[in-house]
Amino acid sequence: MCGVIGIFGHPEASNIAYLGLHALQHRGQESAGIVSSDGTHLRLVREMGYVSDIFNAERLAKLPGFAAIGHVRYSTAGDSVLKNAQPIAVDYSAGSLAVAHNGNLVNAEELRARLEADGSIFQTTSDTEVILHLMARSRQTTMPDKVADALREVRGAYSLALLSETMLIAVRDPMGIRPLSLGRIRDGWVVASETCAFDLIEAEFVRDIDPGEMVIIDKTGLKTVRPFPDSPAHRCVFEWVYFSRPDSTIAGRSVYRTRENLGRRLAVEHPVPADVVIPVPDSGVAASIGYAKESQIPFGQGLMRSHYVGRTFIEPSQSIRHFGVKLKLSPVREVLAGKRVVVVDDSIVRGTTSRKIIGMIRSAGAKEVHLRISSPPTIGPCHYGIDTPSRDELIAASQTVEQIRAYVEADSLGYLSAEGLRATVAPSQDGADGGELCDACFSNRYPIALVPPARLRQLRLISA
Amino acid sequence: MCGVIGIFGHPEASNIAYLGLHALQHRGQESAGIVSSDGTHLRLVREMGYVSDIFNAERLAKLPGFAAIGHVRYSTAGDSVLKNAQPIAVDYSAGSLAVAHNGNLVNAEELRARLEADGSIFQTTSDTEVILHLMARSRQTTMPDKVADALREVRGAYSLALLSETMLIAVRDPMGIRPLSLGRIRDGWVVASETCAFDLIEAEFVRDIDPGEMVIIDKTGLKTVRPFPDSPAHRCVFEWVYFSRPDSTIAGRSVYRTRENLGRRLAVEHPVPADVVIPVPDSGVAASIGYAKESQIPFGQGLMRSHYVGRTFIEPSQSIRHFGVKLKLSPVREVLAGKRVVVVDDSIVRGTTSRKIIGMIRSAGAKEVHLRISSPPTIGPCHYGIDTPSRDELIAASQTVEQIRAYVEADSLGYLSAEGLRATVAPSQDGADGGELCDACFSNRYPIALVPPARLRQLRLISA
Amino acid sequence: MCGVIGIFGHPEASNIAYLGLHALQHRGQESAGIVSSDGTHLRLVREMGYVSDIFNAERLAKLPGFAAIGHVRYSTAGDSVLKNAQPIAVDYSAGSLAVAHNGNLVNAEELRARLEADGSIFQTTSDTEVILHLMARSRQTTMPDKVADALREVRGAYSLALLSETMLIAVRDPMGIRPLSLGRIRDGWVVASETCAFDLIEAEFVRDIDPGEMVIIDKTGLKTVRPFPDSPAHRCVFEWVYFSRPDSTIAGRSVYRTRENLGRRLAVEHPVPADVVIPVPDSGVAASIGYAKESQIPFGQGLMRSHYVGRTFIEPSQSIRHFGVKLKLSPVREVLAGKRVVVVDDSIVRGTTSRKIIGMIRSAGAKEVHLRISSPPTIGPCHYGIDTPSRDELIAASQTVEQIRAYVEADSLGYLSAEGLRATVAPSQDGADGGELCDACFSNRYPIALVPPARLRQLRLISA
Amino acid sequence: MCGVIGIFGHPEASNIAYLGLHALQHRGQESAGIVSSDGTHLRLVREMGYVSDIFNAERLAKLPGFAAIGHVRYSTAGDSVLKNAQPIAVDYSAGSLAVAHNGNLVNAEELRARLEADGSIFQTTSDTEVILHLMARSRQTTMPDKVADALREVRGAYSLALLSETMLIAVRDPMGIRPLSLGRIRDGWVVASETCAFDLIEAEFVRDIDPGEMVIIDKTGLKTVRPFPDSPAHRCVFEWVYFSRPDSTIAGRSVYRTRENLGRRLAVEHPVPADVVIPVPDSGVAASIGYAKESQIPFGQGLMRSHYVGRTFIEPSQSIRHFGVKLKLSPVREVLAGKRVVVVDDSIVRGTTSRKIIGMIRSAGAKEVHLRISSPPTIGPCHYGIDTPSRDELIAASQTVEQIRAYVEADSLGYLSAEGLRATVAPSQDGADGGELCDACFSNRYPIALVPPARLRQLRLISA
Repeated sequence: MCGVIGIFGHPEASNIAYLGLHALQHRGQESAGIVSSDGTHLRLVREMGYVSDIFNAERLAKLPGFAAIGHVRYSTAGDSVLKNAQPIAVDYSAGSLAVAHNGNLVNAEELRARLEADGSIFQTTSDTEVILHLMARSRQTTMPDKVADALREVRGAYSLALLSETMLIAVRDPMGIRPLSLGRIRDGWVVASETCAFDLIEAEFVRDIDPGEMVIIDKTGLKTVRPFPDSPAHRCVFEWVYFSRPDSTIAGRSVYRTRENLGRRLAVEHPVPADVVIPVPDSGVAASIGYAKESQIPFGQGLMRSHYVGRTFIEPSQSIRHFGVKLKLSPVREVLAGKRVVVVDDSIVRGTTSRKIIGMIRSAGAKEVHLRISSPPTIGPCHYGIDTPSRDELIAASQTVEQIRAYVEADSLGYLSAEGLRATVAPSQDGADGGELCDACFSNRYPIALVPPARLRQLRLISA
Repeated sequence: MCGVIGIFGHPEASNIAYLGLHALQHRGQESAGIVSSDGTHLRLVREMGYVSDIFNAERLAKLPGFAAIGHVRYSTAGDSVLKNAQPIAVDYSAGSLAVAHNGNLVNAEELRARLEADGSIFQTTSDTEVILHLMARSRQTTMPDKVADALREVRGAYSLALLSETMLIAVRDPMGIRPLSLGRIRDGWVVASETCAFDLIEAEFVRDIDPGEMVIIDKTGLKTVRPFPDSPAHRCVFEWVYFSRPDSTIAGRSVYRTRENLGRRLAVEHPVPADVVIPVPDSGVAASIGYAKESQIPFGQGLMRSHYVGRTFIEPSQSIRHFGVKLKLSPVREVLAGKRVVVVDDSIVRGTTSRKIIGMIRSAGAKEVHLRISSPPTIGPCHYGIDTPSRDELIAASQTVEQIRAYVEADSLGYLSAEGLRATVAPSQDGADGGELCDACFSNRYPIALVPPARLRQLRLISA
Repeated sequence: MCGVIGIFGHPEASNIAYLGLHALQHRGQESAGIVSSDGTHLRLVREMGYVSDIFNAERLAKLPGFAAIGHVRYSTAGDSVLKNAQPIAVDYSAGSLAVAHNGNLVNAEELRARLEADGSIFQTTSDTEVILHLMARSRQTTMPDKVADALREVRGAYSLALLSETMLIAVRDPMGIRPLSLGRIRDGWVVASETCAFDLIEAEFVRDIDPGEMVIIDKTGLKTVRPFPDSPAHRCVFEWVYFSRPDSTIAGRSVYRTRENLGRRLAVEHPVPADVVIPVPDSGVAASIGYAKESQIPFGQGLMRSHYVGRTFIEPSQSIRHFGVKLKLSPVREVLAGKRVVVVDDSIVRGTTSRKIIGMIRSAGAKEVHLRISSPPTIGPCHYGIDTPSRDELIAASQTVEQIRAYVEADSLGYLSAEGLRATVAPSQDGADGGELCDACFSNRYPIALVPPARLRQLRLISA
Repeated sequence: MCGVIGIFGHPEASNIAYLGLHALQHRGQESAGIVSSDGTHLRLVREMGYVSDIFNAERLAKLPGFAAIGHVRYSTAGDSVLKNAQPIAVDYSAGSLAVAHNGNLVNAEELRARLEADGSIFQTTSDTEVILHLMARSRQTTMPDKVADALREVRGAYSLALLSETMLIAVRDPMGIRPLSLGRIRDGWVVASETCAFDLIEAEFVRDIDPGEMVIIDKTGLKTVRPFPDSPAHRCVFEWVYFSRPDSTIAGRSVYRTRENLGRRLAVEHPVPADVVIPVPDSGVAASIGYAKESQIPFGQGLMRSHYVGRTFIEPSQSIRHFGVKLKLSPVREVLAGKRVVVVDDSIVRGTTSRKIIGMIRSAGAKEVHLRISSPPTIGPCHYGIDTPSRDELIAASQTVEQIRAYVEADSLGYLSAEGLRATVAPSQDGADGGELCDACFSNRYPIALVPPARLRQLRLISA
């Protein structure tokens, strides 16, 4: 998963981009980068690691200019290398060009093979680079036309920020699968994956960029075009369920309130007599508060989250039960011992973590443990930019709810229904523009057909 | 502030110490270190930074042996240098020796001047090193006698773990100001500043080490002596209010439950009509849950804490309101807008952070903001190991509650009463051994007289 | 300037390449790199710095395989960046491909502009990358044909080693300006810029690769083709005068013996009564020995070269005379004081260093200082791969010998004549194949016409 | 082996010290350090590595002041750790104090045991630290008196520079085993192990510091005292033979000229018919020039020394003959092939390197190889500061000259006689003050009796 930001018309554009990336850090903690423009040169800083570790005053000073784009990235194993970090930036015949991409293209491999056969040399294994090569080969003469030319050949999910020496372009795929919002910052403009970035940098939210819309910003101001044929919107429902930050608003709906309401609905659908409702922090907090309110069962902080978890922890050879989870979460015995506990989380992926958490709650003395999930069973992988594991690793793809309950060793297990999810996220008053939701991970109904293999081949050349 | 751990009789002692330090990381994030013993050599790894950044499998492999002590440290500005990181370890006539110290000695400077006049050469500016020099000059022949000899000369707060090639000694000052607990891990022993460390490493809690007790552990087993004259215990009340982790238990009382009860009592002492109770995360969570329960006002997550705050953040020159706090906390507009908000925190130090938080809550649309503090006004600095600022920086040392309320721009401000604190932390059933509490920071009653200057002088020699 | 090496058919190919680069280190100390092939993947390690600092056992272990190419590089200011280090390696439609280049292309900018206009995206500012793009666009199907296709479009000096997963190609430009030799190492093959590399790795010298020859090595053995029209050879004379190592042999002539003979000839052309002949170490050693022998004047070590010169030396603000030279060279007063000194060097570029050296010799008490140069005045920059400064920085381009003598403050100055150089380097017995020498830097006769601008434009995109 | 420098009364004292260390770098390449004083604070920078890698403008800027001492160090295996790097600097009762030491104390272990028994805690395993503890315990009140007090207890070789906030003291042991010279730099003073340091920094040589002399420099000027009983001087002969730089002068005798004369004498003592005389670079250069002159055999550069040898070279598993030597030295075939070669070196230690060099010369085609050594057989280790191996590793301690010749596979082998050495280094005109030479490594006559064990014990405590 990734987050993007773009700034145009601010004297400290890269500094603002950096703060915005901080607010988007939950969308990708593996690498981060910023490209700035001073009107003549693009300048790039890009590294593996956290935003706050990569950037400092000295480095930001090397990114001068009135415009910038930034990117945070999380990727699955294998291609987690610096050269795939974003923004990707190149020189080509028309000048310099950088791109930051949230989403996933499904026909990238096919396009790449065609471009290579015509003599293009790729630098990365990223699907995003295909867009740059399509632009480099476009016979169009303006940057917006080159972008449109290139994007009419790709299929998939994309919210993009593109930067040349003099222009910022933000564009969202015709289905609008991944979010992208527009704001004002003083006299300039900002686009970002989530509205929470606007709050930190004191930008004013203007509106969401529409599915299929291309926004073109340069010194003459902002223009908008719709270069693609009409297509029904399919916003990703998982942004509300889990991915976005609670203090963001997507398509006009508060993420926090939506989650609290999912918890309330969950309490209605799956009530249980209990002494305390606790969240799995931090993902289950808002839903658990909703569950507690609706059910009138007291809320408690039964699990504490550590703030100091490093990337590589060394387990003693004489192993400790539930080791990995214990480093992240600690049970508060006083809240759990002797109690009937409802524990609320947003989803179950493989089931292994839920199993460990429930084991930990029981070790702390809980009498009963009831697991409640604020979304339906996850039965399909995402092909549009969220890093879910493959289908055979998804426990709900092959197991019944009762089998899952037995595996995680809960006394009871309740998932929110698909109807409950849909009714809560997209209530009827959301009128004409709301469009469909993409809930492929819960329904196996994929709005864009896949072109197997969806994943780009590995680079044959290896930086040892 | 600091945290200490000691392990004896476990084949992976340094690995266990490292995990224990992870659980104690909240007591000090500035430096960490471990010394291990294999019976013949002490080995030391010590660095500035987080536990999980300092240690990896390779480094732990360089710390073999059946015994280890570890330390995490936070210090105020000026002496925050590697050479003051702990454990401190030296060679002296009787062999090698390492020490990890939580607390603060009040007569260290006086002792150091005397030792230097007699020809001792100090390596650090740490008060702890004085103990080692006193031991090196002791004419006693056994390590426990040397330790007792040295400690009879120092005054102040200390919970110590000392390690020689063959022996672990844990000792707590006569007043027992800082906590120290004893546990079993398989066939071995563990001592730690807080019981939460035992949970992670699956040690079994045995008992607190008593004020004035010295526990001596070697291959022949565990012995206990009381080398000091009797003295009334004075446990630090701030460990319950703020410092210890909610899942720890001190002197038999759960930190989480104590904080929830402080919140309940606060609701009784300072009720207010409101729509939502929110914590300042993470310090105010348990108290705010207590306040919400007692007051029957709904609980909400009105402030989100960022997990990605780095150490150095660069603010744009055109500054952002409440910048520093905004990086750590984000308001959830949906929870706050149009509401009468009770916000609960554990204490107010300078008042600047509270002022920023309240400003942020108001910016998110709150109609009223009522600040509730789950302890009395902080009017005195701690001289026993907690890094509070000097008295003239403590807002409550010079301002009335109404003045503080005006400064932080709250609609109302309520502190827990001293009676409320005492009644909640030390209820009557706590019998004979409970002793007094040290509440000097709230009362200006210091149980150990200071010897000014309390702080050791800077090293004259500078590592440039 | 650069050095290249290629290995095929040795089980430790990258290790051998690394040792070979060590022997070629004098040809470029700015960056070094190796690409290996195990038949399936190319693997690349490339960094700024010295060969011995870049590679260690761990890194070489990441370069497995039976084939490898290596490169050392020195470049002038401006483009001295990692991305221009070599070998350059890419993935393209036909697989992976790496290239190491010694020389300089004179029409690279023109070719690059054409390729970019057709949609190619360049990664570096190196002229070498043009060759890869030409190959990627070639409609030929075999690697040798793609290479020939590409090289027929470029003009300039090149000795290249190219590596695919299964094939090593070594090729020398039609004029053979830069050297390239072929050797056997056990059952495998090696190509290298200089024969001194063969000695270290215990390879057996087979022959020089001919000007215009392409050697193709794969598992079936070695083939040779001549894809270019015939052209008279123009070997670089400066390789004998200065650039190559004394223990190398170029076109059958020993570099050491050639230099000694240049010194003997110099003594004949410019005799002077003197007490001692000293070299400027290390460049003037062989010629000074020749001068001493021919003139019967005793040889002495009047200047010592420091082995510990780092790259950045900090001069005191109250400056020291001849500071820069003094760090590299120290006068041995005992050899110089009261003496008439002949000091021998290979060339004079700007004159500033010679002036400092002579000043240093005089400060040590020399009575007379006679400067002798074992080549003619340097009047033109090299466009074929040697980093000489531009013409207006070359003192001999604008000053007479007498003016130069006055500037460097020598008592006399003698340059070897052009006839002396030619007669010594290319004696008549060198028969038919010897061809011409390129002596453009001494004669301003350039065998390949320049296409201005000769230097590739800077990347507009900047890695900040 | 080590080198020391001290500066007093120069506004850029640390910068001058750094340049001086550059000139002394041949005396120790393992670590380097500088301590400066601005009158109030001592500041220290000290690291493992080369002078030019450790210091840069930024670091030197952190060493302000008018006085400085510096040190370069080479030590044998085992204690080669940062904490043993020098200068050693401490705080003690009288202020701050730093010391740089060239030499070796023979009773350090005995003194250390006594100091530890009295309660001193040591930070290093260096013999030098003993001096600081003796000073810290001295009841004398002035720094010169504390130094004299301490040094009257130690035995061994030492040339020391000591620095307090306000005073520089330079002192040489009563036998004057290691050199130490005094110079003027503008209005200030400089002391250095060798005069070559004066040349680089443009200081004027004043005189050698006498054996047993203590020079005291502060703002009032320079004083000299002789705190020790008279003792016959015993200057180290090996400084002329090998250790010092050719451009230095020791006790009035030029090192270069002395070596050339050793070579002339060697030619007289061990003549041989031959075609060329070559040095082992760089140690044998001056002596080989003398041999060539005396013998009238032509001088040649038969071995080239590489400038790029890194510390860790990886040999291919299929090993190369004479690998280690080949990385450092390359034979010039043209000089050696078919010739009768005299190769001159300063000494033979284990014999392994000589054997490899001779093998290399033969591989290059030499017909005969005659090895000539410009000193007598090395039969004893140095206990006064030069890192020779132990006696059982010295080939000449157990083998006859003929046996050594056979081992190194030379056609003949000639060592300079003891008489030849003495007559050349200390000719009769050297009058009264010249004293004896220490030639213990050639004669087994040690002027200071050893107190076994000579080497300090390892620290028991290990920084892992």
